[in-house]
Amino acid sequence: MKIAVIGSGAVGCYYGAKLAVAGHNVHFLMRRDLEAVRRDGLTVHSPEGTLRLRVPAVGDSAEIGVADVVLCALKATAMDAAEALIRPCVGPDTRIVAMMNGLGIEEQFGRWFDPRRVLGAMAFVCINRGEPGVVHHLGYGRVLFGHLQDDAAEAQAMARLFADAGLETHVRPSLRQARWEKLMWNIPFSTLCVTAGGVTTAEIMADAGLCELARRLIIETGQAGNAEGCHIDVPGMLERMMQNTATMGRYRPSMLIDYQEHRPLEVEAILGEPVRRARAAGCPVPTMEAQYHLVSFLDRLVRGAVAAAGD
Amino acid sequence: MKIAVIGSGAVGCYYGAKLAVAGHNVHFLMRRDLEAVRRDGLTVHSPEGTLRLRVPAVGDSAEIGVADVVLCALKATAMDAAEALIRPCVGPDTRIVAMMNGLGIEEQFGRWFDPRRVLGAMAFVCINRGEPGVVHHLGYGRVLFGHLQDDAAEAQAMARLFADAGLETHVRPSLRQARWEKLMWNIPFSTLCVTAGGVTTAEIMADAGLCELARRLIIETGQAGNAEGCHIDVPGMLERMMQNTATMGRYRPSMLIDYQEHRPLEVEAILGEPVRRARAAGCPVPTMEAQYHLVSFLDRLVRGAVAAAGD
Repeated sequence: MKIAVIGSGAVGCYYGAKLAVAGHNVHFLMRRDLEAVRRDGLTVHSPEGTLRLRVPAVGDSAEIGVADVVLCALKATAMDAAEALIRPCVGPDTRIVAMMNGLGIEEQFGRWFDPRRVLGAMAFVCINRGEPGVVHHLGYGRVLFGHLQDDAAEAQAMARLFADAGLETHVRPSLRQARWEKLMWNIPFSTLCVTAGGVTTAEIMADAGLCELARRLIIETGQAGNAEGCHIDVPGMLERMMQNTATMGRYRPSMLIDYQEHRPLEVEAILGEPVRRARAAGCPVPTMEAQYHLVSFLDRLVRGAVAAAGD
Repeated sequence: MKIAVIGSGAVGCYYGAKLAVAGHNVHFLMRRDLEAVRRDGLTVHSPEGTLRLRVPAVGDSAEIGVADVVLCALKATAMDAAEALIRPCVGPDTRIVAMMNGLGIEEQFGRWFDPRRVLGAMAFVCINRGEPGVVHHLGYGRVLFGHLQDDAAEAQAMARLFADAGLETHVRPSLRQARWEKLMWNIPFSTLCVTAGGVTTAEIMADAGLCELARRLIIETGQAGNAEGCHIDVPGMLERMMQNTATMGRYRPSMLIDYQEHRPLEVEAILGEPVRRARAAGCPVPTMEAQYHLVSFLDRLVRGAVAAAGD
C-alpha cells in the first residue's frame, strides 16, 4: 500500500517505519530531519531492537502524490497548515488517519475532506526525537483506531494494516469516547509536567499533592466526556491511568519537551477545546481550566510572546 | 513606648521606622541586616521621602527585654521559631501584634501567650528589601487592626499608636474576616505570580486567562471565609482587588521575591491553612487547591528539595 506520512516527528517516523518494514510503500513528508534521512536513512532505537531503513523523504507533499493512506502525525499547533499539506496526497479513496493529540482534529478533517474517509488514531507510546533522522522508542506502542462517523469496518481495516505491521491495535466503537479517554492521560500528565516547573512524570507520581491534582484532572476529563455523551468508566480509567503512569519512570511528555525547547504547545487541542466542550455541556472543570490558563500563559511566556505590560 | 520589632524584613523595618520617627523607643531584632544597620543605620526610601535613622538593632531578643508592644513581622515560615524569639520581650501587659501573612498566626500566639493581649495587623503596602539596611517603600501603607478576641478597645488603642505615627489605620470588628479579606489579594496574586512562571502583577493583569483565574481565586477565598462565618461582600471585594491591583504596575509580591531568591514560601499560611479551613467548612475551593499543590511543589523544586524519583 502507498502510505504518506504527513508530519514526521517521533510518532510519524516510528509508525511509518513499522509500516515500511512490513513492506508498504511509505513516503515521509519531513522538515527538520529531511536532509539527514535522505543522507543516512531513518533510525529507530527501541527496546525491541534498532531499525535502520532507507525511506523516501520529501519536503513537499506534491512529490508524494495520491496515496492509499495518509497518516497525519502533525503537531496540533500545525492545524492551520494541515489541509494544504495533506491535500496533494488525497484521492477519492484515500483514508486519512489523524494520529494527533486532542479534540476536534478529525471533525476539522471531515470538513476539509470526505468525512467517510477520516479516521482517528490514538497512539499510546513513549517516544522522543533524537538527533535528526533518529527516533528513540522507549516503550509501549499500541494504537486505538476510531472512525469519524464510527464506521466499524473502516476502523477495523485500518487497525488490521497496523496489526499486520506487528503493532498492538484496538478498534474503538466511539472515536469521541476514545479521544476523551486519551485526554484522561494527556490532560493530567502532559500539562502538570509543564505547570509543575518542567518535571517528568516521575516527580509528579512521587508528590502527593500533584498526584491529587492529577486525579482531579482525570476525573474532570472523564466527567466532561460523559457530559458530551460518552460512557466512560471514570473510576476504572482513573485507576488505570495512575497505575500505567507509575510504570513510566522519568518520562517527558511531548508537551514538556516542546516547553523546554520553547516550541509552541498543543494547548488548544489538549486543554482549550476540552474546556470549551465541557462548558458547552454544562460540566464544571475548574482544575482543567486552571491548567488551561496557566499552560496557555507559560507557553507564550517561555517563547517571549507575553507583552511586558506596565513597562 | 517601648516597642520590639521581631523580624525586621521590609515590613518590620518600615513600620518600626515610622514608629521610631514618631518618638517611640523602637528596638529591632535583625539577622540579615544587623551589621549594616548597626554601622549605617536604617534607610527607608519612599515616595514620601527618604528616612535615615539610627535605631537599636540586636541579634537576640533578650537584649531588648520586656516591651510594651511586640510587633512581630516574621515570615510565616519562621513560626517554629516565633515563640522563642518573642518570649523575652513579653511581660504581663505586653501587646503582641502579628503583622504577618495568612491564617492561624494569632490563634497560635494566643496559645503561647495571653490571648487577651494578641492582635493582628494587616499591612497593605508595596515594599521590598534593598541592600542590607535599606528598604524600598513603593506605595500604600495602610494597616488594619483586629484583636484575637475581637476586643474593639484593644484594636482601637493599637490603631491609634500607628495613626499617631502618620499611618492610615483602620479597626476591623472581626479579625477573622479581616484575615480572609487580606487573603483575597494574597491568594490570587502572590500565588499566581509564582505559578505563572515568576511574573509580576502587571503580566497577570494583562492576561485575560490569568485575570479569570485571579477572579476565581478571589471568589473562592471570599466564599471560604463566609463559610467560616464571615460576612464578606464578595462581589464588592472582587471589584476592589482587581481595581487596586491594576494600579500597582510591575509589583513583585513577597512570595515571588522569595521564590526567585529560592527562600521558603509562606505556602502553608497563605494557601494550606485556608484550604484546610475551607474543606472543614464544606466549601469547595478547587482553584485554590490547584494553586496550593502547585506552589507547594514549586517551592520545594526550586530549593532542590524534590526527591528525584525514578532516577
